Amino acid sequence: MPYPQVTYKDTVFNGPSLLKRQKTTISQVTVKAQLKQLRDSGRYDCFKLQWHPVYDDKSMWPVPKSLFWDSDIGKWIEGACYLLFESYDAEVDTAVRELVDMIRSAQQEDGYLNVYFTVVEPDARWSNIRDQHELYNAGHLIEGALAHREYYKNDLLMEPILKYVKLIRSVFGPGQSQRHAYPGHPEIELALLRLYHATGEQDAYDLAQYFIEERGNPNGQDGQLYYDWEEKQRGDSPWMRPDPYPVAHAHWYNQAHAPILQQKTIEGHSVRAVYLLIAVADLVVLDETGGKPYRSRDEYLKAAKTLWDNMVDKKMYVTGGVGAISAWEGFGRDYFLPQGTNEGGCYAETCASIAVMMLAERMLHLELDSRYADIMELCLYNAVMTAMSLDGREFTYVNQLASSDEDKSVRHDWFECACCPPNLMRLFGSLGGYLWDYGYRDRVAHVNVHLYTTAKVEFDAGGEKVTLEQETNWPWDGNVSFRLVAPSSVDTVVRLRLPAWSRGEFTLSPPCHDATAERGYLTLPSSYTSKHGSFEVTIHGFEPRHLSPHPYTNQNSLAMARGPIIYCVEDADHPWEENHFRDVVISDQSQVTEEKRTVDGTDEHFVALRTVGWIRDMGVNLILNLVESNTLQGRIVNKAPEFDAET
Amino acid sequence: MPYPQVTYKDTVFNGPSLLKRQKTTISQVTVKAQLKQLRDSGRYDCFKLQWHPVYDDKSMWPVPKSLFWDSDIGKWIEGACYLLFESYDAEVDTAVRELVDMIRSAQQEDGYLNVYFTVVEPDARWSNIRDQHELYNAGHLIEGALAHREYYKNDLLMEPILKYVKLIRSVFGPGQSQRHAYPGHPEIELALLRLYHATGEQDAYDLAQYFIEERGNPNGQDGQLYYDWEEKQRGDSPWMRPDPYPVAHAHWYNQAHAPILQQKTIEGHSVRAVYLLIAVADLVVLDETGGKPYRSRDEYLKAAKTLWDNMVDKKMYVTGGVGAISAWEGFGRDYFLPQGTNEGGCYAETCASIAVMMLAERMLHLELDSRYADIMELCLYNAVMTAMSLDGREFTYVNQLASSDEDKSVRHDWFECACCPPNLMRLFGSLGGYLWDYGYRDRVAHVNVHLYTTAKVEFDAGGEKVTLEQETNWPWDGNVSFRLVAPSSVDTVVRLRLPAWSRGEFTLSPPCHDATAERGYLTLPSSYTSKHGSFEVTIHGFEPRHLSPHPYTNQNSLAMARGPIIYCVEDADHPWEENHFRDVVISDQSQVTEEKRTVDGTDEHFVALRTVGWIRDMGVNLILNLVESNTLQGRIVNKAPEFDAET
Repeated sequence: MPYPQVTYKDTVFNGPSLLKRQKTTISQVTVKAQLKQLRDSGRYDCFKLQWHPVYDDKSMWPVPKSLFWDSDIGKWIEGACYLLFESYDAEVDTAVRELVDMIRSAQQEDGYLNVYFTVVEPDARWSNIRDQHELYNAGHLIEGALAHREYYKNDLLMEPILKYVKLIRSVFGPGQSQRHAYPGHPEIELALLRLYHATGEQDAYDLAQYFIEERGNPNGQDGQLYYDWEEKQRGDSPWMRPDPYPVAHAHWYNQAHAPILQQKTIEGHSVRAVYLLIAVADLVVLDETGGKPYRSRDEYLKAAKTLWDNMVDKKMYVTGGVGAISAWEGFGRDYFLPQGTNEGGCYAETCASIAVMMLAERMLHLELDSRYADIMELCLYNAVMTAMSLDGREFTYVNQLASSDEDKSVRHDWFECACCPPNLMRLFGSLGGYLWDYGYRDRVAHVNVHLYTTAKVEFDAGGEKVTLEQETNWPWDGNVSFRLVAPSSVDTVVRLRLPAWSRGEFTLSPPCHDATAERGYLTLPSSYTSKHGSFEVTIHGFEPRHLSPHPYTNQNSLAMARGPIIYCVEDADHPWEENHFRDVVISDQSQVTEEKRTVDGTDEHFVALRTVGWIRDMGVNLILNLVESNTLQGRIVNKAPEFDAET
Repeated sequence: MPYPQVTYKDTVFNGPSLLKRQKTTISQVTVKAQLKQLRDSGRYDCFKLQWHPVYDDKSMWPVPKSLFWDSDIGKWIEGACYLLFESYDAEVDTAVRELVDMIRSAQQEDGYLNVYFTVVEPDARWSNIRDQHELYNAGHLIEGALAHREYYKNDLLMEPILKYVKLIRSVFGPGQSQRHAYPGHPEIELALLRLYHATGEQDAYDLAQYFIEERGNPNGQDGQLYYDWEEKQRGDSPWMRPDPYPVAHAHWYNQAHAPILQQKTIEGHSVRAVYLLIAVADLVVLDETGGKPYRSRDEYLKAAKTLWDNMVDKKMYVTGGVGAISAWEGFGRDYFLPQGTNEGGCYAETCASIAVMMLAERMLHLELDSRYADIMELCLYNAVMTAMSLDGREFTYVNQLASSDEDKSVRHDWFECACCPPNLMRLFGSLGGYLWDYGYRDRVAHVNVHLYTTAKVEFDAGGEKVTLEQETNWPWDGNVSFRLVAPSSVDTVVRLRLPAWSRGEFTLSPPCHDATAERGYLTLPSSYTSKHGSFEVTIHGFEPRHLSPHPYTNQNSLAMARGPIIYCVEDADHPWEENHFRDVVISDQSQVTEEKRTVDGTDEHFVALRTVGWIRDMGVNLILNLVESNTLQGRIVNKAPEFDAET
């Protein structure tokens, strides 16, 4: 299975583009800015197992402030290794080596490898699987080790990690003396499946499968749900509960309210929920590509699709943000999608949209359908890229559609719970792997192009190279030029995504009469590609369009989009605005004009939109400038209650 | 201060009317149906202090299922005594006497009088003031004793209650050995102020004042908020919290996040919040009528008005329901008013709207303004009367605007937490006191008429009787005939409410040139009333009207009203409907016709409305019958996205 975290290396971003600019910023600035944050906060040295003042802080329960420091390091190593592959940096290289040394030195005799439960509460290992992130941390260390091995071609990190996995495998499982548990925060499942794919380590596969299958078993441990059982073991009152649990025993917060095969709606903490689904999808994909058989491939596929559909159709913002509810950083009920936290919703965590991209990429392997790739692209441009400032130094955690005085949408240079910034870094580090997937078998090669940008991919086809280049000004216009170089002994099929908003309309030059379009992908057969090494597609649908939310959302709003970009109006561009556009309305009857603009301080162009709005109940005409999200002090605009061209 | 729970005796409902019909049902059916529920559930005998199987149920914390049984008895006694006054019933009379005997026998040597903490947890008295309802129960016993004394003219219940109040007074207060606490569920404050008004018992006044002033003191006990202090005394983990606390230390649930004078928005459990405000208003009213002076009358008045305004302007449904949030049975953020629990809101507890009526009545004494009486009437017809079935045997607790398959709006014959049914009974028992208030001083009498119905009030004016009768078909039309009989030695001023929806328009016959209209009340001077013993007012505004919610609510709905009645469409009247009208829209451009109908099984008339609606996105025309809420399977209808008369 071609994980994007592996195949990214085959892609070069070889021309000016929005993605390349952000990727460059991340590899030149962000990776070091985050390294500085790791050093300043004490995380960098945590594997030295020294005492740190933060360990004295007992104000948080059950998640002390340093509980997931291990994962911050793991994610930074993972991202740094992807970026090193693309452009070497001595400071980053040195830091990775130092960190690996420290991690190696922190491993206990028996393989255990966790800072908090070695330094602070050594007697509490594995005592709170529900809340305390030991397995989550392990998962990110595994992913870090995989990237490290890819780049450094050695096992300095992999070796202790494999030892740790062996230990974990011995602790968890169906055996009588084993814990019948599954992580409160899914992550290790997908990491273990990547590990299995890279190393063939059977323990990794079995453990991931066990975690997925055992999850939500109501009688798993001594006839009880594991989390209830372990709560009693700890002697906790059943009324003790972490802040994100809206009521006692809200096991849906952890997706443990039912086995995954029985879940009909996606619930709880959004990152946990989507990470779990990624692992479910991986299990199905691996089954197709040589993994061990397990209970029921079809059932797991159905579960993944059911929950994907519920998420996308009923619980996703127009930007690809998911997780309306701040209280549990997660999904609300169907169609409950308020625009701002001051209206009761729109948490839309950055990590959650990154996870949606990862899941979409997996789903594309199970079912080539542009509905997955459309969402992947939607998230990328409107919920993930927007989560970082132009200079690469500031980030969002929450991605509201509407700013307010009570909770202004602004970026920060770091967070106490610092999951989002390094997640964004590692996503961009492996972004090449999301653009396309490819394969070769029996003299037939294929490339499925999911995302358009200026880039080149090269892969092996029976000992020879296939190269596909694309060049485009996407996302600002729909024209994409391709150049394919493939050996004549190989039949090469190229599939091009036709986004839903294009309504399947495109122009291909030279034309191809054998081309077929199915489920949002245009297939160019080898008879065509062998004749036309260069071809050009123009995807239609780059006119500005208005988007209305589903009526059940009760959101009386109107969004504007153009191609894959969702626009917003920002306070920064409208100095007259005092209430974050809460009283400004637009109408889909108003004219919209396009305007070429330049990103401040660069020669990068983008397309802004301009329309007329009104202040509600006042009838004052306003010229509104809509831009892709930049300063983040804006909102999706409200819909005019009725349109009156004369007001 | 003329509490409606005292003055109700001066009013006779002397003709056919919607209110009289419901009142009669309550006194003939409901009071006995509830008595049966008390007997069947074990509540009736609870003051015998025997063990009951429910006491073994430890599944609920910190509020065991029987914790407020005392209050159910107190409320039933209170309501029963009001109803006995109006129509004697031997069964009810016998039950009240038996209950009083049992209560007397349950009092402990030192005056303590609480079932749960005598039978089940005798060592835990006063240990959890935040959650465990001892003071709430005491409050309802006080109110029961007040009604009992009024009807029976003896102190059989008042005597033990006064003894209990003395004990409570000794436990709570500013003294060094006293608890600096205040009830988690406000209620006793308003009960104590009624007790003070009725008996002059200074301890009652002082205790109420103390509870109100001390509430939310961040340094009240040993430099801490009392609730934090007592939690530590109990040895509870700070992470133990009851289900309605969305996060640890959510003291706003109990209105203890700040002293009442510093609160700017109404927060938390809605019944608690409004009961507290009633007591605040009482404190201000009593100050005007001979009560003891206290810190600052003006500040308390301002607090009551600030929180009233926040509630009515930003947190109230079109029906007068308050408390959008099911999780804590209380107020959500400003403008957060979803229509159904399946949309994230609309708890709108019956007791909360009853409390709003009680508060409105108090506010009218502080400021004669129809904005209070309008809300009182809105609640009465649309959130309180609707909470009982026509037959008087079934009730709602939650009053959604929109039913759904997940949570159908239906009535039940009883509830485990049975606060609403007896609350409705005692409200109707004392309803006469809400119709009007009156007074006499220095040869000048006045009657302020707040609610129109067919009724008569009689009161003493310097030893002589003043009688005012009104006769009307309200709420179906606006014509009201008055007959005033007053001694010639008394100048009588009559003030008539002009509801906001009438836009102050009325016709008076015979006309009065000296009449003044101010803040929604028309004042008829004694020069007029002395000449015209009979006069007739016709309040305008009985045409059907459409109501749109504030745009910040994001509710794309359109309500229909006529006079004080809010209409809804009900599943029961539309057998074709399968989704509780979620997909049906109406337009304020459509014609609305009126239709006289008869309540099933009676000869009582009402006005139904009829308009045309569409199924959204389908363009199917539908004739919709809108009725005042009856079977409760309907909703306020959605607004048409755009009106097109041709579809």
